[in-house]
Amino acid sequence: MLRIITQQADVRSELQRICDRTNDEQVLHKEATVREVLQAVKRQGDKAVLHYTAEFDHQILKPEELRVTGSEIDAAYQQVSKELVEAIRLACRQIEVFHRQRVPKSWVHFDDDEVVLGKRYTPVDRAGIYVPGGRAAYPSTVLMNAIPAQVAGVRRIIMVTPPGASKTIYPAVLVAAQEVGLQEIYRVGGAQAIAALAYGTKTIPKVDVITGPGNIYVTLAKKLVYGTVGIDSLAGPSEVLIIADETANPVHVAADMLAQAEHDPMAAAILLTTDPALAKNVQVAVERQLVDHPRRTLTEKALAHYGLIVIVESLQAAAELSNEFAPEHLELEVEDPWEKVLPFIRHAGAIFLGHSTPEAVGDYIAGPNHTLPTSGAARYASPLGVETFLKHSSIIQYSQTALEKVAGAIDALAAAEGLPSHADSVRRRVQKEE
Amino acid sequence: MLRIITQQADVRSELQRICDRTNDEQVLHKEATVREVLQAVKRQGDKAVLHYTAEFDHQILKPEELRVTGSEIDAAYQQVSKELVEAIRLACRQIEVFHRQRVPKSWVHFDDDEVVLGKRYTPVDRAGIYVPGGRAAYPSTVLMNAIPAQVAGVRRIIMVTPPGASKTIYPAVLVAAQEVGLQEIYRVGGAQAIAALAYGTKTIPKVDVITGPGNIYVTLAKKLVYGTVGIDSLAGPSEVLIIADETANPVHVAADMLAQAEHDPMAAAILLTTDPALAKNVQVAVERQLVDHPRRTLTEKALAHYGLIVIVESLQAAAELSNEFAPEHLELEVEDPWEKVLPFIRHAGAIFLGHSTPEAVGDYIAGPNHTLPTSGAARYASPLGVETFLKHSSIIQYSQTALEKVAGAIDALAAAEGLPSHADSVRRRVQKEE
Repeated sequence: MLRIITQQADVRSELQRICDRTNDEQVLHKEATVREVLQAVKRQGDKAVLHYTAEFDHQILKPEELRVTGSEIDAAYQQVSKELVEAIRLACRQIEVFHRQRVPKSWVHFDDDEVVLGKRYTPVDRAGIYVPGGRAAYPSTVLMNAIPAQVAGVRRIIMVTPPGASKTIYPAVLVAAQEVGLQEIYRVGGAQAIAALAYGTKTIPKVDVITGPGNIYVTLAKKLVYGTVGIDSLAGPSEVLIIADETANPVHVAADMLAQAEHDPMAAAILLTTDPALAKNVQVAVERQLVDHPRRTLTEKALAHYGLIVIVESLQAAAELSNEFAPEHLELEVEDPWEKVLPFIRHAGAIFLGHSTPEAVGDYIAGPNHTLPTSGAARYASPLGVETFLKHSSIIQYSQTALEKVAGAIDALAAAEGLPSHADSVRRRVQKEE
Repeated sequence: MLRIITQQADVRSELQRICDRTNDEQVLHKEATVREVLQAVKRQGDKAVLHYTAEFDHQILKPEELRVTGSEIDAAYQQVSKELVEAIRLACRQIEVFHRQRVPKSWVHFDDDEVVLGKRYTPVDRAGIYVPGGRAAYPSTVLMNAIPAQVAGVRRIIMVTPPGASKTIYPAVLVAAQEVGLQEIYRVGGAQAIAALAYGTKTIPKVDVITGPGNIYVTLAKKLVYGTVGIDSLAGPSEVLIIADETANPVHVAADMLAQAEHDPMAAAILLTTDPALAKNVQVAVERQLVDHPRRTLTEKALAHYGLIVIVESLQAAAELSNEFAPEHLELEVEDPWEKVLPFIRHAGAIFLGHSTPEAVGDYIAGPNHTLPTSGAARYASPLGVETFLKHSSIIQYSQTALEKVAGAIDALAAAEGLPSHADSVRRRVQKEE
């Protein structure tokens, strides 16, 4: 049963425990495996990719089978409903509309023709997007990663996803890839997929940035190749924190908590409420909704370890606890969330306001990205977005006159830093003897 | 002597070798040391910080000596020139002006009162900035890291820098910190400083993001703590790539190459030129300027290993080679760089245009940040900036009517992903029976 504690209890250490839930001791051991995979793929390319696909995914592939074919994609359409295709198309449109807003643009500023400064935005040449298989094979992941890359103007997007039984890819994932216009899909997952994207193989091209969620092996591989390529973030298990007052509907709050917990036995669902009656009613509603839940065992496990209801003294106290947790998803199921809670929120991946905005709206259809910072990373990180696939260069041009004006200051700074040629490179240009 | 090769030679593999110059085999061994330091500081806090400061920096400190005092800062002013203070003030003003331009702003978009979407930007709570000691103790590093954090609105900025002989900090660094208004400076460097900022100790507060350059130990520590905190980038040794035509002055080009090489024996300086005469003249000028160079040994070492002149067939060929290298600093010493080269450049940290814009202008005074992506990271990364200290939350609010419109699509997607409570959280809100 979902635990209820009060703010007097040691809420902070409980929230900290939940936030740190991936920080386990097994990681170092797994890292050794991941390092081995990375080194092997770097050295042996496709051969190692196929070896680890056989070992970890139990699928024996030939090199020419790595790439997904057009006929497989055609076949995938036969296996999905018309409703799903329509839903994917709606999601595509709305995700694109949102991501096209306020895309950073290049600018230059001319100061009296003597100094030109600016920023010049350009997309990465190649992006690699990782789409998990198995329990977490989501068509929405394809859209949420590919569309921002496309809006950024990335010319080549390479998708990787692990093969399931009989070498197949989940049809809904292939349909999503086709709807969004991806041309290049490889049947490879795990650390070997990240290695292939980071170093390149004969079959799989090296990319500049790798995005997308994955299991602990994928995440460790992304961390290790960071620096060789860019990455979006180190995704941990998903989490929701709900702040609710007496106006919230306990059945809806319970459904939202379950919608998080059903992802993964490591998922976290936390409710902070000012209303003790709501706390009790949510607890009961969760039990009731679990009864015939198709993923009951997994969901119960998540709630038992990482589910929590806290009765708080005020909405402001709730906001402060939420800031310390820095949740991936934050639902504000209160009266007037814009005035009463939002102004006090400093750290959250995505904020869902009001009683008619369950997280599922943002997971699928609203348009903002569903790839969000987890495990407290919202303290410093942002959702995946167009910016993930863009970078900029500073632009600097000085005229001879402008250079003369700052030559003395550069001289003083270069002297303080013990870098004589820095000063020299300016002095030689402003002295007239040359 | 600086080597000259032609484009017919194996330019690409030479550039690749230079780009990969930090990718050495020693890294794994150093990583073990860094891991030990991180673990010790995480478990033992200040005690471990002081232990490693004694071991690596040979300074025996008491805990209360970690923090730099006001009287030390006063004393630092006595040791620097008035010109240096003025130069630091000019740099502060110009860096602030540039960084205040086009700072991302929060926005919300209301769609018929039924859907509200937006992005809400907030600064990190605490930033830690690392300023190297020894050969690379630069006042400009302080400004380039602290000012973007201040413009972002970071409330607490913590600076760390290793103690030199007699526990002192380089006076120019302390003056820069005071000029920019930093209140909290700790006398600690290396991996132990990064650990203290990432985990917090009794004396040194835990931060949300760590920025600033450092040696290989600092860089490895930043990579390992990434995920616990945010980081700006993994800085490697500095590099410049210069594209020059026959209008360039060989003495100036040579000075610019030396200004890069004098940083570090691992620094790289590359010239791509369409003019064989310029190539020869730069080679000669470099030799001449090296004769009485105060940092001759180090600078020669850098040029011998990572210096190169390439005679290219066209400026466009030069731009393409530059894109493959993705230099930290790119100088375009050509006639009409805006038309002839810039349009073909896709990847560079900072671009210096024309004959009167040596890199030193950008290192110190122009305003754009001098902390730039190195070792090819400009393929996917940007200069340090206000964005490094900002993050955003997505904002989503749906009305009941809006939710009803998308309920069917969410149902289809949740079904395809096998997540029943996702669908349920919407269905329960749009069905009328509750």
